Amino acid sequence: MIKAGVVGATGYAGAELVRILSDHPHVVLTVLTSRQFAGIRFDRVYPAMSGIVTLTCEEISIDRLVDSCDVIFTALPHSIPMKIVPELIAQNKKVVDLSADFRFNDPALYESCYQPHASRGLCRDAIYGLCEVYQDKIKTAGLIGNPGCYPTSALLPLVPLVKQDLLKTETIVIDAKSGVSGAGRSLSMTSQYCEVDESFKAYKVAAHRHNPEIDMILTREAEKPVSVTFVPHLIPMARGMLTTIYATLSGPVKTDDIRRCLKAFYGQCPFVRLLDDGHMPDTRYVRHTNYCDIGFKIDPPRERLILISVIDNLVKGAAGQAVQNMNITMGLKDTTGLMHTPFPV
Amino acid sequence: MIKAGVVGATGYAGAELVRILSDHPHVVLTVLTSRQFAGIRFDRVYPAMSGIVTLTCEEISIDRLVDSCDVIFTALPHSIPMKIVPELIAQNKKVVDLSADFRFNDPALYESCYQPHASRGLCRDAIYGLCEVYQDKIKTAGLIGNPGCYPTSALLPLVPLVKQDLLKTETIVIDAKSGVSGAGRSLSMTSQYCEVDESFKAYKVAAHRHNPEIDMILTREAEKPVSVTFVPHLIPMARGMLTTIYATLSGPVKTDDIRRCLKAFYGQCPFVRLLDDGHMPDTRYVRHTNYCDIGFKIDPPRERLILISVIDNLVKGAAGQAVQNMNITMGLKDTTGLMHTPFPV
Amino acid sequence: MIKAGVVGATGYAGAELVRILSDHPHVVLTVLTSRQFAGIRFDRVYPAMSGIVTLTCEEISIDRLVDSCDVIFTALPHSIPMKIVPELIAQNKKVVDLSADFRFNDPALYESCYQPHASRGLCRDAIYGLCEVYQDKIKTAGLIGNPGCYPTSALLPLVPLVKQDLLKTETIVIDAKSGVSGAGRSLSMTSQYCEVDESFKAYKVAAHRHNPEIDMILTREAEKPVSVTFVPHLIPMARGMLTTIYATLSGPVKTDDIRRCLKAFYGQCPFVRLLDDGHMPDTRYVRHTNYCDIGFKIDPPRERLILISVIDNLVKGAAGQAVQNMNITMGLKDTTGLMHTPFPV
Amino acid sequence: MIKAGVVGATGYAGAELVRILSDHPHVVLTVLTSRQFAGIRFDRVYPAMSGIVTLTCEEISIDRLVDSCDVIFTALPHSIPMKIVPELIAQNKKVVDLSADFRFNDPALYESCYQPHASRGLCRDAIYGLCEVYQDKIKTAGLIGNPGCYPTSALLPLVPLVKQDLLKTETIVIDAKSGVSGAGRSLSMTSQYCEVDESFKAYKVAAHRHNPEIDMILTREAEKPVSVTFVPHLIPMARGMLTTIYATLSGPVKTDDIRRCLKAFYGQCPFVRLLDDGHMPDTRYVRHTNYCDIGFKIDPPRERLILISVIDNLVKGAAGQAVQNMNITMGLKDTTGLMHTPFPV
Repeated sequence: MIKAGVVGATGYAGAELVRILSDHPHVVLTVLTSRQFAGIRFDRVYPAMSGIVTLTCEEISIDRLVDSCDVIFTALPHSIPMKIVPELIAQNKKVVDLSADFRFNDPALYESCYQPHASRGLCRDAIYGLCEVYQDKIKTAGLIGNPGCYPTSALLPLVPLVKQDLLKTETIVIDAKSGVSGAGRSLSMTSQYCEVDESFKAYKVAAHRHNPEIDMILTREAEKPVSVTFVPHLIPMARGMLTTIYATLSGPVKTDDIRRCLKAFYGQCPFVRLLDDGHMPDTRYVRHTNYCDIGFKIDPPRERLILISVIDNLVKGAAGQAVQNMNITMGLKDTTGLMHTPFPV
Repeated sequence: MIKAGVVGATGYAGAELVRILSDHPHVVLTVLTSRQFAGIRFDRVYPAMSGIVTLTCEEISIDRLVDSCDVIFTALPHSIPMKIVPELIAQNKKVVDLSADFRFNDPALYESCYQPHASRGLCRDAIYGLCEVYQDKIKTAGLIGNPGCYPTSALLPLVPLVKQDLLKTETIVIDAKSGVSGAGRSLSMTSQYCEVDESFKAYKVAAHRHNPEIDMILTREAEKPVSVTFVPHLIPMARGMLTTIYATLSGPVKTDDIRRCLKAFYGQCPFVRLLDDGHMPDTRYVRHTNYCDIGFKIDPPRERLILISVIDNLVKGAAGQAVQNMNITMGLKDTTGLMHTPFPV
Repeated sequence: MIKAGVVGATGYAGAELVRILSDHPHVVLTVLTSRQFAGIRFDRVYPAMSGIVTLTCEEISIDRLVDSCDVIFTALPHSIPMKIVPELIAQNKKVVDLSADFRFNDPALYESCYQPHASRGLCRDAIYGLCEVYQDKIKTAGLIGNPGCYPTSALLPLVPLVKQDLLKTETIVIDAKSGVSGAGRSLSMTSQYCEVDESFKAYKVAAHRHNPEIDMILTREAEKPVSVTFVPHLIPMARGMLTTIYATLSGPVKTDDIRRCLKAFYGQCPFVRLLDDGHMPDTRYVRHTNYCDIGFKIDPPRERLILISVIDNLVKGAAGQAVQNMNITMGLKDTTGLMHTPFPV
Repeated sequence: MIKAGVVGATGYAGAELVRILSDHPHVVLTVLTSRQFAGIRFDRVYPAMSGIVTLTCEEISIDRLVDSCDVIFTALPHSIPMKIVPELIAQNKKVVDLSADFRFNDPALYESCYQPHASRGLCRDAIYGLCEVYQDKIKTAGLIGNPGCYPTSALLPLVPLVKQDLLKTETIVIDAKSGVSGAGRSLSMTSQYCEVDESFKAYKVAAHRHNPEIDMILTREAEKPVSVTFVPHLIPMARGMLTTIYATLSGPVKTDDIRRCLKAFYGQCPFVRLLDDGHMPDTRYVRHTNYCDIGFKIDPPRERLILISVIDNLVKGAAGQAVQNMNITMGLKDTTGLMHTPFPV
């Protein structure tokens, strides 16, 4: 059994990690940390898990994590993991970090969007954990920077197409929509029920920190500078993310070309489902799952491709992909502990 | 492996059965029937299950069910199962019926609330599948009448207390609230989004068919006639049921007496969670699970007990309890295929 | 024109007052106060009102209120109004207080549920502003204690019946359900979207401060001690309150007796709508309005009356009733500024 | 007083018309028709309006409409109005048609998206009722084709900019999101609560009939062929529409140029609110109102303009704009009966 710890276990992504790891056939949860709830049983914070997750939340202790864990998941606000992770890596622990701290191989780029980086060397070595794209590198990774939810939903449909140069990358527009759990569990006026209910709005328009993260990976995969327009919106629901992507085709590309390209890339990937012609994804179809469903359509008069992807922002967009990364780096099948039949409603 | 069929697989309760059985370690799904979608792949009706449930919906055929199934779940509107089930039972198949057709051992009582019964003999022999109360009878049952969702949520907290005569049964008031999925998947103005959203109402006030079902079981367990006041309400959400029960205590009963009584009854029941003093249940804590959480409080000036229970109406209130019944009658542990860690949100 | 001020204008009840008063044909808004947003334009806090409400929020100043207002609405947390209101009353201003501070004529009772009262004399003189019941006293009132939302929804159906002694008051059970806006605009984990969405729960079970407020008025009107069981619940929606009341009839009371009693009491009250037999209220029907809709049914086997009322908790349950109180005490028709055709959805 | 009739009064747009007209100071409602509910009082279909709208629904009768109405609003599915409207116009009645039947001046274009047109001459004469753009023509119009909800939300921000040639029109992408009431009141699986709740999806991707309607007006105003990519999505809420528009700037256009252009166009239009820099609209801010709020931002690295508009799809997107059209054509101030302070929540 793999001994796993979750640092920052009481946020929504942390608690989702606890849920998945708690049912994982090859994992035993050993340490849960929470600054706010240290000393309190986890199932008092999440009474849904009463009697199932019986650990008590602790303060963060490197020694305790090193002694008790093989793998550590850090689900903390950015700037905190960079102070903890180096010591864990130094002790040969595997770490999957869910913050932005280890997503950028270029510390300068990270620092231009966030704040100074305390561990620039590790930053360069960390592997970007977009499982279906970087599977080979993840296998041998020690430190994995788990992708952001928006980048996951945007990159999975785009990467195969930009790699094959099927799109004019300067025309890419990403209109993304997320459920409220993406904002985390911290108290905030913008997450209050009466402010969200029966409301739809854009936020951080062309100013979201996931924009440079998306650009970085597209630039890497397209092998030329890519800079997209990215606008996130907030949906009045708890979980789910739908991303609509627009781009002009690079030439006389047909529906079958797009399908062939995506199929070749994802044919062996159990978590990416390519929808048949005439079908489009719904966040409901992937809710509570690690799937990314992708549909597309060409709008011929404008030679424009419309790509639509859906994920559950807390699963494939956070905790699920983190566990998938652990599975890959620990030599397990990537679906282990992540497959269950989706709910009909 | 147990070969299982679901008759009426595309309604919400049927689809939830498909979900649970599809993940059940000792079951293989062999037949799914749907009048409306016969000939269509199940995962076209529920695209969430694409690639996971690959069976095609069929018309109902007794021969096909008999040939291919050990256990058959009938998830059909009442009055239809009574025409199908007798032939299945005659062929020694186990049947769990989710309609009201086999819940009443007294056909006359059934007929007073529904319509004439075509199979009065079977009606008398069927076992009422309230798992935690009738576990022993279920073990040897051939035909199980799966309880209604409201009766499940009302009876679990009440049965132990009326058995011990702790309540004045003539004072019992049951104020129940259900999510919309309880109304099923058929088109109906009362289930349209804009009619339900931001709306709360009572319906079938003191006139719901689950009222006599509740009375029947309480009468049996109290060993005297019990007739409760029952008012259901509709909550603007998909899943979940909370039932608030009021009853005057039969004498100088204390909080500890109530707790002791419930604990004695449910101490060994993995799906009934009794909450600590000062804690009250939330439908969210049992969503997507087979749990029934129970909290209570005595209101001393009025010597009145307030009992609150929550279930997921599609799981413990329908498909989950049906599978629990199958587990019991097939000699499996009752939690088999029904335990997974609940979602944090 | 009546010059009106709103103290505590940026909470939900305060903002709803601003909305109603802003459209009121005989009112001009002169002062809006907000500790948190002093110095900021009101329509920056509520952008929906951009260009319509152009006042800037101010700190509370008694002099300013006295100079600029004929009527002052105080929409503040309890314990604060008692420090401000006496000075306003001393200057012969009319005050409608939306907190609990002036609802209890018996300061000792107030102090048993809240905290010491700083203005016990005024407490005794204030009028309880349940408009349809105390209309005559409100006409000449200087200080009106605006009722709580739960008491409004419970008392309107009950008062006529207990006055006529049609109910066994010791059997009264009040099962109330409220939308989330009732909890106010302050940040709170229990008001976070992801904690409320797809969730239903009871809270402050038989321990809510509106319970003694209900008991006080029922005791007054029944002319004997009344003590009810009261359980509030939270509905996943922003606005609306439905209250289901159960009570045993005091004798051989018939449906027509109940109807006659309620009709006699409310026949001339434009804001109370008594539904026809077989119809039950829905919170949606009174949303954004000052109506209270009432339906009822007798459950004959148990000789129990079921009363159901709905209000919009922010209108009839707070700001609307406050303006209705102002209308009455200023000699206007009580519907002035409060009547508009309800929205279909 | 203007005598007004609503044909198709019980759909959501029809009922919203009834609401607005019922409160309109210069209108008296004389005729409401409904095929489904003929003979039934309107307030039985919409109990929210009990005691306020006391008319009974009727079958459609041209004679009755001609005798009793000065203005007729037709809120029917397309293809039906074209059979009724000609007779009303022949009798010199003013007609505002909310369907698509009279939006296209080119019958051939209409027929390419809908079906053969029975009244091609009237089609050519009708005025497209986008109030802020075609105010002068509307003043003298007899027949007004009320714009679709999506076109209203897309055209208001775009028209001034394409008229001034500030955008490369071939790059325009419109990503629109609508609440569920836009789908109307007819029973449909896609409008069932459990199918919509906690769900977000695109539909009719690049295939919606509002696409050619948008293209037609942009082509007219740009004075060159314009063909946009248009993708509508469904939001899990009842009312509200947010439209995000992307287009490359036609040259070195600055934020101030955009603002100046929009301000010049809408400076005198009470229902269009241009937001300050750094502010973006929220559907909640215009809910239940006739406002269209517009925000924008330039994404400099890509020289791309992001425009965001919000409307209430049933008000500015349907019934409100229809009444605004009536106001204009009847010589009233366009805000008459359409201005009330928006709700804070």
